[in-house]
Amino acid sequence: MTEPRWLDEPEQRAWRSLMTMQDGLSEFLDRQLRTRCGLSDADYQVLAHLSEAPEGRLRPFELGGLLRWEKSRLSQHLGRMENRDLVTRERCLTDQRGAVVVIAPRGRDLIEVAAPQHVADVRSALIDHLTPAELRTLTTIGDKVRKRLAELEREQLDREQ
Amino acid sequence: MTEPRWLDEPEQRAWRSLMTMQDGLSEFLDRQLRTRCGLSDADYQVLAHLSEAPEGRLRPFELGGLLRWEKSRLSQHLGRMENRDLVTRERCLTDQRGAVVVIAPRGRDLIEVAAPQHVADVRSALIDHLTPAELRTLTTIGDKVRKRLAELEREQLDREQ
Repeated sequence: MTEPRWLDEPEQRAWRSLMTMQDGLSEFLDRQLRTRCGLSDADYQVLAHLSEAPEGRLRPFELGGLLRWEKSRLSQHLGRMENRDLVTRERCLTDQRGAVVVIAPRGRDLIEVAAPQHVADVRSALIDHLTPAELRTLTTIGDKVRKRLAELEREQLDREQ
Repeated sequence: MTEPRWLDEPEQRAWRSLMTMQDGLSEFLDRQLRTRCGLSDADYQVLAHLSEAPEGRLRPFELGGLLRWEKSRLSQHLGRMENRDLVTRERCLTDQRGAVVVIAPRGRDLIEVAAPQHVADVRSALIDHLTPAELRTLTTIGDKVRKRLAELEREQLDREQ
């Protein structure tokens, strides 16, 4: 086995910086949402996607794709949100096997209160402190990683076949 | 209440790009660790910090500070890791109230196998695809956000007093 290529100093700094930012941002945004609206970050993501969909309705596979969540995680989370009157699950009329997730009135009310505060938090912790060039670089880096992860996933699937 | 300042197009793109990268990277790295070594990303972080500490020992508050985890989360996670023979918890000799977390031989073996593969994954998904300028910008953005989050935390504490 060849000697691993450990990260050099600038690589290490960039990687740690990203990890710390990631943890710090998630923790901060999640705490703000919980304190103000009683929503977790995961609840917020679900409600945000549903509220942007036509009539506040999405098929579970569409919602799971947008959130990039696995089926079992989505189903468990939706169950808990249904118990809290944030969403409802209906049978799909055009496909007997399927179901539709619908934003409930209480979910709609909460996301409408939460969204302006959430965007103010995102600005206050991150966006308002970045230059236009930094915003562009962040977008570029994110796009590179997304493409790369998709490639790695395809390679993995090919190996499994 | 004033109209919220929604994100404009480049801001939205940067924010979504960061969120997607964050989710994708965590999921990928966590899956790789689990499949290859039976470690979660959280286990890996704990073992990495302990293995770098003198004699593989840290006080819980030191470990919690490095991980940026709350006390209850740390204590629960260490309990599960202790059951799996990855760490042990000892009484501290110099401070009767305290305890020390120590990396166990099995934890040491696993992190030594996991670390070279983990760094290869980090390179393969992210680091090897960034230019030196992108690495620098990522470090700068992370540093800005860390400082900003610390400020926001101080403001919060001041308000609570």
